[in-house]
Amino acid sequence: MFSKLQKFSEQLNSNRLFETFVIAVIIFSALVVGMKTYDIPSSLFGIVEILDWAITIIFLFEIIIRFIAEPNKSQFFKNGWNIFDTLIVVISLIPAESTDMAFLGRLIRIFRVLRMVSMIPELRILVNSLVKALPQLGYVMLLMFIIFYIYAAMGSTFFRHINSELWGDILISMLTLFRVMTFEGWTEVMYETMQVYRLSWVYYLSFIFFTAFAFLNMIIGVVVNVLEEEREKNKADKAKEEGSATLESLSKQLIEIQKQLSELKK
Amino acid sequence: MFSKLQKFSEQLNSNRLFETFVIAVIIFSALVVGMKTYDIPSSLFGIVEILDWAITIIFLFEIIIRFIAEPNKSQFFKNGWNIFDTLIVVISLIPAESTDMAFLGRLIRIFRVLRMVSMIPELRILVNSLVKALPQLGYVMLLMFIIFYIYAAMGSTFFRHINSELWGDILISMLTLFRVMTFEGWTEVMYETMQVYRLSWVYYLSFIFFTAFAFLNMIIGVVVNVLEEEREKNKADKAKEEGSATLESLSKQLIEIQKQLSELKK
Amino acid sequence: MFSKLQKFSEQLNSNRLFETFVIAVIIFSALVVGMKTYDIPSSLFGIVEILDWAITIIFLFEIIIRFIAEPNKSQFFKNGWNIFDTLIVVISLIPAESTDMAFLGRLIRIFRVLRMVSMIPELRILVNSLVKALPQLGYVMLLMFIIFYIYAAMGSTFFRHINSELWGDILISMLTLFRVMTFEGWTEVMYETMQVYRLSWVYYLSFIFFTAFAFLNMIIGVVVNVLEEEREKNKADKAKEEGSATLESLSKQLIEIQKQLSELKK
Amino acid sequence: MFSKLQKFSEQLNSNRLFETFVIAVIIFSALVVGMKTYDIPSSLFGIVEILDWAITIIFLFEIIIRFIAEPNKSQFFKNGWNIFDTLIVVISLIPAESTDMAFLGRLIRIFRVLRMVSMIPELRILVNSLVKALPQLGYVMLLMFIIFYIYAAMGSTFFRHINSELWGDILISMLTLFRVMTFEGWTEVMYETMQVYRLSWVYYLSFIFFTAFAFLNMIIGVVVNVLEEEREKNKADKAKEEGSATLESLSKQLIEIQKQLSELKK
Repeated sequence: MFSKLQKFSEQLNSNRLFETFVIAVIIFSALVVGMKTYDIPSSLFGIVEILDWAITIIFLFEIIIRFIAEPNKSQFFKNGWNIFDTLIVVISLIPAESTDMAFLGRLIRIFRVLRMVSMIPELRILVNSLVKALPQLGYVMLLMFIIFYIYAAMGSTFFRHINSELWGDILISMLTLFRVMTFEGWTEVMYETMQVYRLSWVYYLSFIFFTAFAFLNMIIGVVVNVLEEEREKNKADKAKEEGSATLESLSKQLIEIQKQLSELKK
Repeated sequence: MFSKLQKFSEQLNSNRLFETFVIAVIIFSALVVGMKTYDIPSSLFGIVEILDWAITIIFLFEIIIRFIAEPNKSQFFKNGWNIFDTLIVVISLIPAESTDMAFLGRLIRIFRVLRMVSMIPELRILVNSLVKALPQLGYVMLLMFIIFYIYAAMGSTFFRHINSELWGDILISMLTLFRVMTFEGWTEVMYETMQVYRLSWVYYLSFIFFTAFAFLNMIIGVVVNVLEEEREKNKADKAKEEGSATLESLSKQLIEIQKQLSELKK
Repeated sequence: MFSKLQKFSEQLNSNRLFETFVIAVIIFSALVVGMKTYDIPSSLFGIVEILDWAITIIFLFEIIIRFIAEPNKSQFFKNGWNIFDTLIVVISLIPAESTDMAFLGRLIRIFRVLRMVSMIPELRILVNSLVKALPQLGYVMLLMFIIFYIYAAMGSTFFRHINSELWGDILISMLTLFRVMTFEGWTEVMYETMQVYRLSWVYYLSFIFFTAFAFLNMIIGVVVNVLEEEREKNKADKAKEEGSATLESLSKQLIEIQKQLSELKK
Repeated sequence: MFSKLQKFSEQLNSNRLFETFVIAVIIFSALVVGMKTYDIPSSLFGIVEILDWAITIIFLFEIIIRFIAEPNKSQFFKNGWNIFDTLIVVISLIPAESTDMAFLGRLIRIFRVLRMVSMIPELRILVNSLVKALPQLGYVMLLMFIIFYIYAAMGSTFFRHINSELWGDILISMLTLFRVMTFEGWTEVMYETMQVYRLSWVYYLSFIFFTAFAFLNMIIGVVVNVLEEEREKNKADKAKEEGSATLESLSKQLIEIQKQLSELKK
């Protein structure tokens, strides 16, 4: 009987109509989330509540179907997207009564929109490739963090008595430096400290220079990476094209011919 | 008689002088549009009005010429640029009396400058290539929209009571987030919410990180695309260059020679 | 006697020491320009004046030497850099008495620093390559200008009564739009007009989108260009490497061998 | 006995555990630096002082170990990273009593975090490659400096009487221009001078155009560089792949075969 259920689940899961229906429900849940940010009459409030539960139940149903359809159950939770979907649905089920839970409940209802990414293959590929690119940039980011940390420590040590709101401690200073990096009102920050330390513009300009340089390096890294991949592809293309025939092998064939000719002469 | 008219139209349409004249009229119409933004004496107002009508009539005349010159009439409206030109001219003809129409009339007179793009082939190619590049970036844009939507829903839910002008509903929140993305006064927005939620800087920094990342991905996508095209061209070049002579075919020729030599030996 | 003078000039002109001296004078003239922006005691004022004239005379002397050294006099003024240098020196000679002339005189003394570019070959190459790259970007710039013009005409027409300082006429509107493009306080500009036209955010966002798109296109154009050049170089490299030996010619040689073998068999 | 010490030092230095311990101490010293930016109770102050000295002593010990481990002593100070580490440690040893020294002492304790870069090989490679890339951009930076200098001289000459805080002398003007380049409140700067010189927007827009152009050139330079390196690698790959077998050599082999065939015929 269970195998029958599994077969049915598999059919349903690979059904294009069912997939479209689930995406439609996700879009609908996004619209509900958007609607809730407007002032809605209290009479509608009950309806929204019911819709919310209906969406949760459909999502629960869909995840169960997908789990049953999976032939190898242990494989199911090795896929990051499945874990993500299950988490979203399970947390949605917790009744949101206490204020702490209400906060989480509202958040999880918003994050349900992210299920769009797990449902549309093209978006899934995009996010996967983004996640894959992350570690390559890891050391540049570590370097950037060290630059930030050192400048924040300096800023906090020397500028704290000037403006404790901007340079109060090392964390606040890092936030201020991030602001300087985005060029958002950075001259105001600079002019303020320049009234005490005349030469503090060196601090800001060197910081901007170093971060811009590290950022440029990141972009170069990305471009080199893309080029490297292209090169690999090019090589693979060539290898496939030429098959076993390389210049080396041709040369060997020619040497063979010359041997045969020498024998003929004799 | 009509075929005579068509021949004349074709000659006129492909006439370089006529083309230059039309471009001159478009530039002149742009100058009239620009002039109208200055305070002009009311005595000149009548003249500008007449000029406007003259331009409209010349444009109408030109589009009719082009329509007659087209041998296959049904093909005429399959070209997007022809539809664009016709629409601009036809809407210009509607008398602008009521206030609603006056608004549209003034807009259409400004959009006439866009006819420059439809007249100069190089600009037409440029715009066409831009439009073609759009769908390739489609999924990245969808991902970016989802990021915006989720953050706007969060922002609107939690920050609305702090500043309803910035976080009133989901649409206003998206506009505020776009502002944050352009780094325009984003620290003011952040400092305001940080007074209530101490950790809301995580919200802003993660948002900036995600959008910057998606943007970087877009640029990589564009570069990869350009490289892919280059690669295709390179391959085509090579194929043409080498003709039928590949290493594979050379190897076959050599095998043939070896066979002949073996026969000779015998 | 003149040919003797020319020989001497040529020797002097190609002398490395003389070149270094001229560059030193240019750097010194830059320092004088910088010094004049500080409040200097009036006693020093006379010395600066004398220095100024000394620099002018050295520059005049140098340009005359260069002119005499040139074997083909008519060629001298075909070089843009020579014209530039001569102009700078000649205008420096005009005595700066009247206020109008004083303005020009001060400007020309500042522009003398630009002679650094004409003296150092690496900078000259850099500027030349920049100037060469300009026309390639010409059509993208024309397209961008059209976008600016249309949006400025719209802005001036509809927003003039809201804030005439920002949208007074088409030129001021273009300046305001440039400001919006640099994201400098663009939200203030937008919020102001949104109080009258609720939907005017569409105007700003579409403008930012179009200009960003055109800008992206410019960068792609530049990258494609660089790649195209690389490709040409690659091809030239290959052609040089392979000499007359192409796969095609090898195939012909093999066909020849097969013919000879056939004859042998007979 | 010394050779025994050296052997021990070498073993210790190449010990993975020892390396991890040093990195842990660096991270700990970074945390101490960060902690000092918070208001800590005076009872903890003594402990922090002791920790500071402990870190200094561990660092001193580590650098001595490294020096002893080095077989060729004169080579030790030819490595920039060794000089950097030694300087950091030596300056840390100077007791910070006088106010001037206290400033340096606090700075050096912050810079100790930079030892992270000298300890982790990947970061060292990254910084080395950054430093190597610098001179390639040298001439573009010189050109940019000349642009800045000329515009600053102009700005200081003509705008000083308008706002001496922004245009007081050439150095302040360069800072103001850097601010304009980052688009930070540049319109305020412009609007102020436009009230006196109506056309001063030409000054700002041309400056933005020139610097943006020079910046674009820098990026192109970097991309071309990366491509050039790729090309070299490609060539090296190919050369290695093909070994001694080039089309040229194949052609020679074929000519040899043809000669043999001709002899056979005779």
